[in-house]
Amino acid sequence: MARVRLGRVYHFSAAHRLHSPHLSDAENVALYRDCNNPGGHGHNYILELLVKGEMDPALGMVMDVGELDRIVKERVLDRLDHQFIAHLAPEAPISTSESVTYVIWSWLTDTLPAGVLLHRVHLEETRSNFVDYHGEDHPGKASA
Amino acid sequence: MARVRLGRVYHFSAAHRLHSPHLSDAENVALYRDCNNPGGHGHNYILELLVKGEMDPALGMVMDVGELDRIVKERVLDRLDHQFIAHLAPEAPISTSESVTYVIWSWLTDTLPAGVLLHRVHLEETRSNFVDYHGEDHPGKASA
Amino acid sequence: MARVRLGRVYHFSAAHRLHSPHLSDAENVALYRDCNNPGGHGHNYILELLVKGEMDPALGMVMDVGELDRIVKERVLDRLDHQFIAHLAPEAPISTSESVTYVIWSWLTDTLPAGVLLHRVHLEETRSNFVDYHGEDHPGKASA
Amino acid sequence: MARVRLGRVYHFSAAHRLHSPHLSDAENVALYRDCNNPGGHGHNYILELLVKGEMDPALGMVMDVGELDRIVKERVLDRLDHQFIAHLAPEAPISTSESVTYVIWSWLTDTLPAGVLLHRVHLEETRSNFVDYHGEDHPGKASA
Amino acid sequence: MARVRLGRVYHFSAAHRLHSPHLSDAENVALYRDCNNPGGHGHNYILELLVKGEMDPALGMVMDVGELDRIVKERVLDRLDHQFIAHLAPEAPISTSESVTYVIWSWLTDTLPAGVLLHRVHLEETRSNFVDYHGEDHPGKASA
Amino acid sequence: MARVRLGRVYHFSAAHRLHSPHLSDAENVALYRDCNNPGGHGHNYILELLVKGEMDPALGMVMDVGELDRIVKERVLDRLDHQFIAHLAPEAPISTSESVTYVIWSWLTDTLPAGVLLHRVHLEETRSNFVDYHGEDHPGKASA
Repeated sequence: MARVRLGRVYHFSAAHRLHSPHLSDAENVALYRDCNNPGGHGHNYILELLVKGEMDPALGMVMDVGELDRIVKERVLDRLDHQFIAHLAPEAPISTSESVTYVIWSWLTDTLPAGVLLHRVHLEETRSNFVDYHGEDHPGKASA
Repeated sequence: MARVRLGRVYHFSAAHRLHSPHLSDAENVALYRDCNNPGGHGHNYILELLVKGEMDPALGMVMDVGELDRIVKERVLDRLDHQFIAHLAPEAPISTSESVTYVIWSWLTDTLPAGVLLHRVHLEETRSNFVDYHGEDHPGKASA
Repeated sequence: MARVRLGRVYHFSAAHRLHSPHLSDAENVALYRDCNNPGGHGHNYILELLVKGEMDPALGMVMDVGELDRIVKERVLDRLDHQFIAHLAPEAPISTSESVTYVIWSWLTDTLPAGVLLHRVHLEETRSNFVDYHGEDHPGKASA
Repeated sequence: MARVRLGRVYHFSAAHRLHSPHLSDAENVALYRDCNNPGGHGHNYILELLVKGEMDPALGMVMDVGELDRIVKERVLDRLDHQFIAHLAPEAPISTSESVTYVIWSWLTDTLPAGVLLHRVHLEETRSNFVDYHGEDHPGKASA
Repeated sequence: MARVRLGRVYHFSAAHRLHSPHLSDAENVALYRDCNNPGGHGHNYILELLVKGEMDPALGMVMDVGELDRIVKERVLDRLDHQFIAHLAPEAPISTSESVTYVIWSWLTDTLPAGVLLHRVHLEETRSNFVDYHGEDHPGKASA
Repeated sequence: MARVRLGRVYHFSAAHRLHSPHLSDAENVALYRDCNNPGGHGHNYILELLVKGEMDPALGMVMDVGELDRIVKERVLDRLDHQFIAHLAPEAPISTSESVTYVIWSWLTDTLPAGVLLHRVHLEETRSNFVDYHGEDHPGKASA
């Protein structure tokens, strides 16, 4: 049976502020520039998930997209959409795109149905900025 | 000389929270829903300006786009980009798209070079949501 | 109070076939070309509505977008999304973009709250093709 | 019969250089900046036409889009696509977006079928830059 | 000689209906929801092909894009564009995006010029939904 | 530490003409068609870079995007934006998208900070045409 990748696009709007406790105030400004502004700012994030599995020929599907939507709503969108994104996890304490992408992988990787693997989390913060994560060096379930 | 309209697109990322002091907390939640969440959230706003004037045949231009960029940076982007948008003006106290669009018109309408009029402010808050304002019932300089 | 225009974007996927009973089969092929293919074909339609009203300064809104969404779902999307679009109305019997746009205007123009007028129905059939309708010569409620 | 507006999107890729014979070399650089670079540069232009007419209820159409495509190919695209755009017309000697838009109006306004009027020429030079022209003060056939 | 990947984007509009003969009517509704509606519906599909080969330094090309266009028109677009997509192949009997993507790979993989391999078929059904296929477990010619 | 990929999108507008000294004039026309037109033409190129490295948990970043912007401006954009792209390098003498992509890889691959690798150069010439290059068979520093 052919193994294909199924992509699905989600949207959420959130606020954040980049500020590292490991840096002085001046260093925070120097590194994060206007992303360190005190009141915070926000983005319309575009989240594109790519999952991978065998296409069931009788149904023509890798998995039920409605089930994926339910998982993503519960695990990701309900936590991030229309929220201020602050400290997300010990290993990703700053709400950069890199960290948010990493955390979304953590939240999703063990939730997919049997035979389906998370292949890539792609997060666009703006039209100019995005992060791809394939689970490299992640302590959770590995991608194929 | 032909009168043409010149459009220019700008981007800014900002945070906001919709909350009206004229409503109870329950009414705020009922009206603004997740836009009333306490920590705020944010957007990548797309601002499209349309100005109108006569094309100078010797130069082929309505106005110098570089000058427009300088005006918009000083009057609009420096106030909104990477900021938390709160109370903007007495007549537009809630940071809805309608209010932000109205205020951007106020900030720009008297700043354009002689012979050039602001024709439309178009503001996209998300891919699904936008506001157009042509200056109707605005106390400032009228559009043609 | 300032009068502004509020835009909202909806999506629906539908099938159709262009075939006029006033034309012979050969004439149908000559006019509609591959849009006349017997089995039909389909599109991801983008519907952009523009409504117009006074912004309430205390709330910063022209109308509640949630209410607009409910109206559009009930009047438009539930009739067109994931459907085969055939004969829609006596005055718009062929499911061209022009006809669908005209019919959407008819379905919506008398349903908006007091003080809010439908200003424009914009329908994109493909990235190359769209129709704008402002209600000119429509028997229903006029736009301002 | 309802009067609707039909939009159609075309693409062309062309090169140009902004340089006015009415200005000194230094003035050309000051006004047009990198658009005055000697070798020229280029763009993927997006041309969006909006025509207006009555929808024929028996056919559901304002005009045959295939006929519009033939007109635009012959009058516009064959002259501009994959070309270096230099002096286009005496009243629009510099190949700015304003001038190209004006000239496209001139080329098209008298070519449409009876009952159909050109309503707007919209030309995008880049994602940040566009011009709209409705035929104001043009010597050709007026828009409604 | 450097091996690069050349991408090319195509569009087609088609109708379909998801209905599996292996399921009861109720199960079909439960699984495919509104995609099982009896009359069918449709989409503007975006097909993005990625082929891979060595760049000929004298010509600067992996392959002639005009030749690729001819192959794709004959093998894919003439079969799918402005059609109702039903049973496509025994191993892909339901016209899901997964199946259509798999079948497009089958139709194209053995048709490319010597030295050029099909690397990925990417098919977008809507803005929210896409499938990537790299030929894994396909009986045809393997990708590199 | 997790290894993630950071994407960044840049834009430049340039002119070019495809003409190979290894071909006769007739062969040039046959192969490159209107891209061989004598005056040249141009495009709004979209350049998407993907770099790869370990996310520093204390900062949440793979590398400082501002530093990447400075490198890309100096190495790539200042050479290509608003220029006529002619002979770029001995091994990429024709200014096809394949060649430009290859050359951008050459210009960037040895300039990134320690621990960061260039993973992919993606160049869109038009909405229909793009090239991906991962450094295969390139004499410079290899990608991971």
